[in-house]
Amino acid sequence: MSKLANRALLEARYLRDVEIITRIRSAQGGFVLFAITPPRQSTPAERLPEIARATVERLDHLDLDGLVLYDIDDERSRNPVERPFPFSPTVDPSEYRAKHLQAWRTPAIVYRAVSKYQREELRNWLTEQDPGRTLTVLVGAASSGSTSPVSLADAQALRAELNPELLLGGVAIPERHSRRENEHLRLIAKQEAGCEFFVSQVVYDLNAAKNLVSDYRYECESRGLAPVPIVFTFSVCGSMKTLEFLRWLGVAVPRWIENDLRHSSNTVAASLEQAQAMAVELIDFCRRLEVPFGLNVESVSIRREEIEASVDLAARLTTYLREPLGRVHG
Amino acid sequence: MSKLANRALLEARYLRDVEIITRIRSAQGGFVLFAITPPRQSTPAERLPEIARATVERLDHLDLDGLVLYDIDDERSRNPVERPFPFSPTVDPSEYRAKHLQAWRTPAIVYRAVSKYQREELRNWLTEQDPGRTLTVLVGAASSGSTSPVSLADAQALRAELNPELLLGGVAIPERHSRRENEHLRLIAKQEAGCEFFVSQVVYDLNAAKNLVSDYRYECESRGLAPVPIVFTFSVCGSMKTLEFLRWLGVAVPRWIENDLRHSSNTVAASLEQAQAMAVELIDFCRRLEVPFGLNVESVSIRREEIEASVDLAARLTTYLREPLGRVHG
Repeated sequence: MSKLANRALLEARYLRDVEIITRIRSAQGGFVLFAITPPRQSTPAERLPEIARATVERLDHLDLDGLVLYDIDDERSRNPVERPFPFSPTVDPSEYRAKHLQAWRTPAIVYRAVSKYQREELRNWLTEQDPGRTLTVLVGAASSGSTSPVSLADAQALRAELNPELLLGGVAIPERHSRRENEHLRLIAKQEAGCEFFVSQVVYDLNAAKNLVSDYRYECESRGLAPVPIVFTFSVCGSMKTLEFLRWLGVAVPRWIENDLRHSSNTVAASLEQAQAMAVELIDFCRRLEVPFGLNVESVSIRREEIEASVDLAARLTTYLREPLGRVHG
Repeated sequence: MSKLANRALLEARYLRDVEIITRIRSAQGGFVLFAITPPRQSTPAERLPEIARATVERLDHLDLDGLVLYDIDDERSRNPVERPFPFSPTVDPSEYRAKHLQAWRTPAIVYRAVSKYQREELRNWLTEQDPGRTLTVLVGAASSGSTSPVSLADAQALRAELNPELLLGGVAIPERHSRRENEHLRLIAKQEAGCEFFVSQVVYDLNAAKNLVSDYRYECESRGLAPVPIVFTFSVCGSMKTLEFLRWLGVAVPRWIENDLRHSSNTVAASLEQAQAMAVELIDFCRRLEVPFGLNVESVSIRREEIEASVDLAARLTTYLREPLGRVHG
């Protein structure tokens, strides 16, 4: 690469660094995130730096706008069915970032599973965050039956009181819209509680996602509200075990997709193609409806092959999103 | 058009005339049908010839492989909700064809709503049909609660006994697959009862249609059966009243499609684009899965604008299906 091109790239990156926050503040989408789950708490402490370094190296060549750091809660209360992969507590995302991801250049969206924390912990955490480098997504208890020291509404109010500049996001669940047809109203209620963007769970049911986008858009319009960016999450699925896990997490995976994967000679490659096609269709749909959107890519599996395919997916989607003509160089 | 091109077209048409029957017999798809509902019985008899003539004129420039003639039953037993368009008995499709559609050049698929007939009537009808010109789709009672003189299984057995050469089709309902996940097994059972093709109800839920195709394909494979053609029906929807009627008929119309149509400045044009895109996606899907398929287009509404848009849809889909590269000249 020539020095000039290199410099242009660096400048573009610099602009993008500040872009995600300014973009969300002005209700604009068009950004790409990559989500990671911190290592398990059982990981030997001396291995954490090299794991973080491998992650940064893997993602560095992507032209990402931000990193998402999940805060994993044991969701047994939500789903009594046995978890396909055993639950294992993970390192606190904020701590992991502070200690091991300093090399990462973009802002990060740090999740807080509200029900895991005492009020004081959450107050301190919210107060300490630098709103120029961090965004947060506050997630409520996994089931309405569980009781936790702090409710989601409380946590949202604390953020507004203690650190109003800290950009707040909420989760969007298209599958819940299929069941209850009111997820768009829940998004608007979250917006009223301070949310300025939403992140979906992994999308495999395009109709459900489109229904939510569409209902949200027209509901905003009828209330004279500007829609805020919805970040859609995509992932690859390289095995039937991963598919089982996706379903356990509440992701509606259509039968035809399952059949395609089950009968493919290369499951992970087939899944990559499917995910790309779904994302492209949803991008085009959001553009047509003029709903701001972002993309988020994750690997729900820790198998190397699936992680690498997810990185490939993020690369393809970044290209598609940024090409003036939206072409993908697969 | 030059004489030569004209002759080539005529020859192609001639080949196609015999094609639908030979194609289905060899479990091949790739054909396009147009479905009509005969006029109401309340129509003055002297108006029937001109109505038939208008239909033939409207469809004649299309390169159709066959005509479908529906046999309308009062479906009140299936759906207690008030019918958006009042039910009105229609002229018998076989009689209408014999008296008024002689000018039509291709074979016709004549529906029989089995529950409407006495055993003797059905015996006579099945015996009289010319299997070189007629195919039939036998449809069971609209709800399992109703009792009728002849069951669907009886009627299928009569066909096999009295006119085994008469090509028999069955209905395929993707929406039922969404609810019960066994429609593919029902199709295979119908195949064992003599069905050599299936016709779907109007498709608006692509995932449901894909799930059915996919499950059917892999179930056939595991049983060592060759899949038979599934004919997918598409229609345009030019008003909220028509949409309500589609839902009353049991068609699952996704919310986003409803919203698109409701907020479009030209509902019928938007619906035409949607239906075309859905059909193209399903064609590509069936091709990839190597499941033989046909297309059927109808207008569920009797408004002129919607009928004309349906004819336009059939023209576009015929072009797409027959172009080597599958391009659509919209």
